[in-house]
Amino acid sequence: MEILIAVAKTNKYATSESGDTLEVVERPNGGVSVVLADGQTSGRGAKAISTMVVRKVISLLAEGVRDGAAARAASDYLFTERNGKVSACLNILSADLQSGTLVITRNNPTPIFVAQGERIECLSGESSPIGTARNIRPAISEISLENGTSVVIYTDGLMHAGERINQSLDVCTLLEALLEEQDPHPQEIADTLLAEAIRLDQGRPNDDMSIVVLRVSPLETDEIRRMTVRLPITNLYSKL
Amino acid sequence: MEILIAVAKTNKYATSESGDTLEVVERPNGGVSVVLADGQTSGRGAKAISTMVVRKVISLLAEGVRDGAAARAASDYLFTERNGKVSACLNILSADLQSGTLVITRNNPTPIFVAQGERIECLSGESSPIGTARNIRPAISEISLENGTSVVIYTDGLMHAGERINQSLDVCTLLEALLEEQDPHPQEIADTLLAEAIRLDQGRPNDDMSIVVLRVSPLETDEIRRMTVRLPITNLYSKL
Repeated sequence: MEILIAVAKTNKYATSESGDTLEVVERPNGGVSVVLADGQTSGRGAKAISTMVVRKVISLLAEGVRDGAAARAASDYLFTERNGKVSACLNILSADLQSGTLVITRNNPTPIFVAQGERIECLSGESSPIGTARNIRPAISEISLENGTSVVIYTDGLMHAGERINQSLDVCTLLEALLEEQDPHPQEIADTLLAEAIRLDQGRPNDDMSIVVLRVSPLETDEIRRMTVRLPITNLYSKL
Repeated sequence: MEILIAVAKTNKYATSESGDTLEVVERPNGGVSVVLADGQTSGRGAKAISTMVVRKVISLLAEGVRDGAAARAASDYLFTERNGKVSACLNILSADLQSGTLVITRNNPTPIFVAQGERIECLSGESSPIGTARNIRPAISEISLENGTSVVIYTDGLMHAGERINQSLDVCTLLEALLEEQDPHPQEIADTLLAEAIRLDQGRPNDDMSIVVLRVSPLETDEIRRMTVRLPITNLYSKL
């Protein structure tokens, strides 16, 4: 089988920098982790916060620190650096080959969807962002790495999409429809959800939007790891 | 336009861990960097070295340190940690949106190919691996971010492929043929070169093999960043 991870990410309309930061890092004992942080507000200030948080988490994960401990450390670090005045939402999604599980760490009120077989579960229990208090704990879910499992994580830009027109993104229904296909590619799932969110914001995203879809594909594979990155540079010359 | 990066990576035959480490990191002033290190020998020891080197480099790049300075720092760090007894090959490939250039940093005797228009250039000047002496300097090339530019970087596993049967991988000719297509996808280029190297090693790679292909695509794009990771887990249960 194969673990497929897809990411799609866009900025708030007319903002050159996204306040969301996402990095993928190899786990020292096997597997990968995706770390996604959304800094309070948007633009350059939010980017500095989300980058600081993600760097802290990936450097700890790379040293073999467990996901929950890394999230707590990032919270304490942000609390100390910014005197508790700035918050960030944090999600860590790990495919841990050592334990044979998917580990979902959540410091984010935005829900997470987990699909296994016909069942789609929504992880939406209370969960507070990091950085605003001492002793903030993440909500952690651990599920076994099974064929056909899908996990969808996103930032609040998608959750609030459509608010201007009193509509909202129905991730669960869209996901159900997408998963009815034979082994859908996670990039297709991510792109479809993001496109729908942008449509609800009438083509002008009201906030930074990032979405991560992980899928355990049952297909037979060669033993080759692959990665593709696509970075549009529409505004290179305005930056020079 | 769009920057496309593709990676393909496989282990030495019958080795569960690759000595090559590759990470992609966002640059704080815009753009991305790909950091590829190949630790001396193969297996767990080599992995520890290449991981150490890549971590050091990405944490420096994330702080805004220039690529050349990050490579030198990684060399001094490895030299100090391992008393100059262990070497690693290091390549950094950056799409720097601040300067509007591709920056290629090389501490690796393995050549790098750069294609612009009809011309394919091979960067094969002398370049020593890091970690074995003080004051090791990288070879740095900087080229402007132009439509149609392609860069191909790989580890010595590809360079030495076919040695058992007295053949070798002709990257330049293969690349020429691949680039004759209309805007070829870098994943296709990476996959084709890796498949050919594995074929030359008669299906059993004689060393870890990693290949990175970056291409500046002239295609119009939406403003969405995308990333896909594919991680085969053929040996999950043997690891548990």
